[in-house]
Amino acid sequence: MSKPLILITNDDGYQSKGIKSLLDSVKDLGRIILVAPDRPQSGMGHAISVNKPIRCFKLDCFSSLNAYSCTGTPVDCVKMGLFLLKGEKPDLILSGINHGSNVSTNILYSGTMSAAVEGALAGIPSVGYSLTDYSEDADFDYSMKVVRLISKKVINEGLKLGTCLNVNIPNVKEDKIKGIKVCRQGKAFWDDTFDHRKDPLGKDYYWLTGSFGSKEPAPDTDINYLENNYVTIVPTQYDLTCHDSVEELKKWKL
Amino acid sequence: MSKPLILITNDDGYQSKGIKSLLDSVKDLGRIILVAPDRPQSGMGHAISVNKPIRCFKLDCFSSLNAYSCTGTPVDCVKMGLFLLKGEKPDLILSGINHGSNVSTNILYSGTMSAAVEGALAGIPSVGYSLTDYSEDADFDYSMKVVRLISKKVINEGLKLGTCLNVNIPNVKEDKIKGIKVCRQGKAFWDDTFDHRKDPLGKDYYWLTGSFGSKEPAPDTDINYLENNYVTIVPTQYDLTCHDSVEELKKWKL
Repeated sequence: MSKPLILITNDDGYQSKGIKSLLDSVKDLGRIILVAPDRPQSGMGHAISVNKPIRCFKLDCFSSLNAYSCTGTPVDCVKMGLFLLKGEKPDLILSGINHGSNVSTNILYSGTMSAAVEGALAGIPSVGYSLTDYSEDADFDYSMKVVRLISKKVINEGLKLGTCLNVNIPNVKEDKIKGIKVCRQGKAFWDDTFDHRKDPLGKDYYWLTGSFGSKEPAPDTDINYLENNYVTIVPTQYDLTCHDSVEELKKWKL
Repeated sequence: MSKPLILITNDDGYQSKGIKSLLDSVKDLGRIILVAPDRPQSGMGHAISVNKPIRCFKLDCFSSLNAYSCTGTPVDCVKMGLFLLKGEKPDLILSGINHGSNVSTNILYSGTMSAAVEGALAGIPSVGYSLTDYSEDADFDYSMKVVRLISKKVINEGLKLGTCLNVNIPNVKEDKIKGIKVCRQGKAFWDDTFDHRKDPLGKDYYWLTGSFGSKEPAPDTDINYLENNYVTIVPTQYDLTCHDSVEELKKWKL
């Protein structure tokens, strides 16, 4: 049996420590193709390039690896990876390791996780990994063990069609980790504001900022488990239908 | 009782016919604030501007209306609208009318629908409207009746917290419309490819293209109903957890 084919991407760009750590975690598990953004693309959600062309360059900074940078979004990178493979379907798509967590409703804004959801749309088992540390030189040592453990499991077991995994890793020493929890996406919301500034010409501009809070107090969420030093796994789907509401809204008799 | 406050946005930009039609459909139903992208932002999904500032300009092309253009994404526009309202919460957020349909998994790529989902995240009843006609001078006459009917219903009835509505309208004459169906998001996928071109300097670039297909044959989907000349309403949620898989994956005993 030939080795599994693994497509790797992220949203922090090909030069980030996170994607190198992801690559190092799994490179002996299969044949690798890496297609990653040429610059940071955090917060790009499920954006794709429909109104502009993209460019794609072979990278030689990953030694002999089949690696490319792409001017598009993380989701574009997944599409480009599949295009470059000319019909050969990856066995696994891995995205990350993101510099910063992607629990709760942050999954919607996350380029890392949208790349994994795009993998699910393509019918390929996919996992997004995130570490709760935004710094460029974050310590990914323990995360790499998690990536290897879960990626091997997904290669062996597969995933339910239409789903991918959202994996978040606490930023603590390994001996503080309490375990791994499969759980649901918690409810929490950004309390957004804009920092209103003047440019050198005196004209107005705004930076989006805010704090993430309004967390539901429930114990069985990814937010809560992550805060309590568990690695969290949320099975994530692209069906956004609120099935409970379908029957309810039929009563409107429109 | 004061009139409801309605925030209007879209992803085709403030100059599109679709947003003007949306505005005309509901402007007598409440007090309006309009914040829309300054240029087309199709395919932006749930992207937000985290790595760059945005600008926001008062528009005078909507007569006395409280209207702004914004250099950000559709989701940025919702956040900016809420910011400009300084704590006053809209009773309703409307996005569209999109030039082109947003059924099935297209919801993930859609800036129009991501703006509505952002409204749901803010706890505000929100609706995204789309007409199956990509042309700039699409005929929105019947769509305007649909927008008015459903928007009034949502003002009166509210929506389940955590949900918004994805409304799609067929591009046929009103006498061909068979009715309105509340239904689920259908499964269908883009068969993507990239059009590989050379720029005037002989360098490679790529345009994302492809066809939307692989439609599941089920009758109870938005794709199927829309194709059969029904207006479709899909209640849409931001909880992406595949709850069925949570118990299944716990058996992995990681």
